[in-house]
Amino acid sequence: MTIQEESLQKHLEWQGKIEVISRVPVESRRDLSLCYTPGVAQACLEIQKDIDQSYALTRRANLVAVITDGTAVLGLGDIGPEAGMPVMEGKCALFKAFAGVDAFPLCVRSKDVDETVRIIAALAGSFGGINLEDIAAPRCFEIERRLKEVCDIPVFHDDQHGTAVVVAAALINALRLTHRSMETARVVVNGAGSAGIAIAKHLLNMGVKHLIMVDRFGIIDEGMEELHAAQEQIARVTNRGHLRGKLEDALRGADVFIGVSAPGVLTGEMIKAMNDGPIIFAMANPTPEIMPDEALKAGAAVVGTGRSDFCNQINNVLAFPGIFRGALDCRATCINEEMKVAASIALSELVGDALAPQCILPDPLDKRCARAVADAVIRAARQTGVARK
Amino acid sequence: MTIQEESLQKHLEWQGKIEVISRVPVESRRDLSLCYTPGVAQACLEIQKDIDQSYALTRRANLVAVITDGTAVLGLGDIGPEAGMPVMEGKCALFKAFAGVDAFPLCVRSKDVDETVRIIAALAGSFGGINLEDIAAPRCFEIERRLKEVCDIPVFHDDQHGTAVVVAAALINALRLTHRSMETARVVVNGAGSAGIAIAKHLLNMGVKHLIMVDRFGIIDEGMEELHAAQEQIARVTNRGHLRGKLEDALRGADVFIGVSAPGVLTGEMIKAMNDGPIIFAMANPTPEIMPDEALKAGAAVVGTGRSDFCNQINNVLAFPGIFRGALDCRATCINEEMKVAASIALSELVGDALAPQCILPDPLDKRCARAVADAVIRAARQTGVARK
Repeated sequence: MTIQEESLQKHLEWQGKIEVISRVPVESRRDLSLCYTPGVAQACLEIQKDIDQSYALTRRANLVAVITDGTAVLGLGDIGPEAGMPVMEGKCALFKAFAGVDAFPLCVRSKDVDETVRIIAALAGSFGGINLEDIAAPRCFEIERRLKEVCDIPVFHDDQHGTAVVVAAALINALRLTHRSMETARVVVNGAGSAGIAIAKHLLNMGVKHLIMVDRFGIIDEGMEELHAAQEQIARVTNRGHLRGKLEDALRGADVFIGVSAPGVLTGEMIKAMNDGPIIFAMANPTPEIMPDEALKAGAAVVGTGRSDFCNQINNVLAFPGIFRGALDCRATCINEEMKVAASIALSELVGDALAPQCILPDPLDKRCARAVADAVIRAARQTGVARK
Repeated sequence: MTIQEESLQKHLEWQGKIEVISRVPVESRRDLSLCYTPGVAQACLEIQKDIDQSYALTRRANLVAVITDGTAVLGLGDIGPEAGMPVMEGKCALFKAFAGVDAFPLCVRSKDVDETVRIIAALAGSFGGINLEDIAAPRCFEIERRLKEVCDIPVFHDDQHGTAVVVAAALINALRLTHRSMETARVVVNGAGSAGIAIAKHLLNMGVKHLIMVDRFGIIDEGMEELHAAQEQIARVTNRGHLRGKLEDALRGADVFIGVSAPGVLTGEMIKAMNDGPIIFAMANPTPEIMPDEALKAGAAVVGTGRSDFCNQINNVLAFPGIFRGALDCRATCINEEMKVAASIALSELVGDALAPQCILPDPLDKRCARAVADAVIRAARQTGVARK
């Protein structure tokens, strides 16, 4: 039985991976009067007077919505909102297991940016945070940007920022192992979708100076016709030498390859043409841009993938539970760049003395991660004035 | 300490009355692969092929959304979506306690009918049913009607239909006790808001022939200028003698008073002018249209209120958990009139040999109710062809 077949069997047994339970006793008339009418009226009135009281008197302070439109689910593409739900429920289960966050999955049947924004914004009062998930680019950029403008709770597209935070944590340690620095390393990001662009932005925020993005049509340079708005924006702050060409042109002499692209697009030959002992993060799922043994044979010093069956798994679960735990705990109004940088650094530091080419990240199941990330996120939120407590 | 003060204290302790938990283990890499990537992809693909599989592979089959716009919360009026949340959470706690239904509260920040309909319809794929709550009339009629058209899952405005189901159950037993019948009894419903209109419609479906509705401006008659669309509609099938006047005119010689109106509007004098031994359901909350002792002194044979500190509490909790339990269990596409009638009859029968003027309904805490109502609802759904299993 494959893991997919076994998972399907388990899904049939589970009958849902999340459940809503009651936290209050409902055994007596008195219980009813306290948790429901007439007693509950007082809690309502307190919130009417001061909406902030919703954090004290309802579940809001610990509650995150995990929302998709089903347009970019895993590598499966636009499979529809209902079909995206197993992933959203899984994500909610991880939120609870790793950070004690109550997360609730919602699939939205809409592909119109305006409508999706209105729907999610209208629901924001029910939650303490919004985790966007598996929404196709470039729509996801606009949806997130506009939601951030209208919501006073954190809005976070995990496919973008969760990935970026973990990649940066891995890169900090890989650079250390290979005696490089953010400032001097030449980095190539292959795949200019939502994850790739977010990784690029985050690495620039973390000090990377030399970064080139590559997409299917080749190296991305300012002013190219093929670019959508988000790509045009990142083109203005990357590839400052205005190199043009293909992936192999970008990689010549580079120190770091970060792939969020397609299986097999990176060859041993290309790695050999990179700087000595390059860093290779081949995160295409389930089949990476190059298999780790091949990358190592071609001279890679450090190799990471998205897969759990190889070492150095670059997995979002290292980041999103702790990031939201922190944002909720300090009632942050948003998750800003500084909080993401702090999360990356905290994750990289957790590796400690175990640091080695085969160990640049904590284990995804390491339960210390969420707390460490949360604490760093809270400090950064307070320092940047976005924490409300 | 009043019940309100104690309830507020409890709300601060509870930190939310519902909680989202995980139903799956997340302890090993294998667990992660089964409940999340890569295994979860198979469940997604099965649902993509057949949306019905969402009932088997996600929590949908047991999941109801409890949705408000915060415009008519309890007797508090338009207090805003966030302030309505304690009531929604309480309702969700009752759903779980009485019927094992997973219910999740959502407050929608919109007062535009079109927008509210679009928002809720876009979310319908995440749930197995939708319980609308505390939405002001007449908007609630239009929202429910249009949602029923576009959703293939049950949509049920509990303030209307839950109330109507329980009132009808109480009336069946009160009529039996006073040797009257639905067909011959003269019924007056005071308060032509959402609950009053729903009660009237439901009683007509249950065989009542002589029914007059009264609102603040007096008896409702076809063609009156004051009526909104839903009132005009009910006016066409009630008050066939085209009586005009005030509440006291409607009540002269009537057998039944059903009040969903305001404190103290019913007097002993009015009761004395009714038929001998009338039935009085004075459900204004928290202060009824007349206090039970006063109604009894004026000659009432049976008195019910909405309050837990008097006998014959007419409480929605007797109906909504079982109605949704039944609708979910047989995957009904809607909750139709026949299902509501079946629920009323099942509830009335549960009283059994205990039937007496002080006992016309089961105790709200009687855990048999939900199952009995659910079974009756399932039978009616199957008989009317709206059950999908």
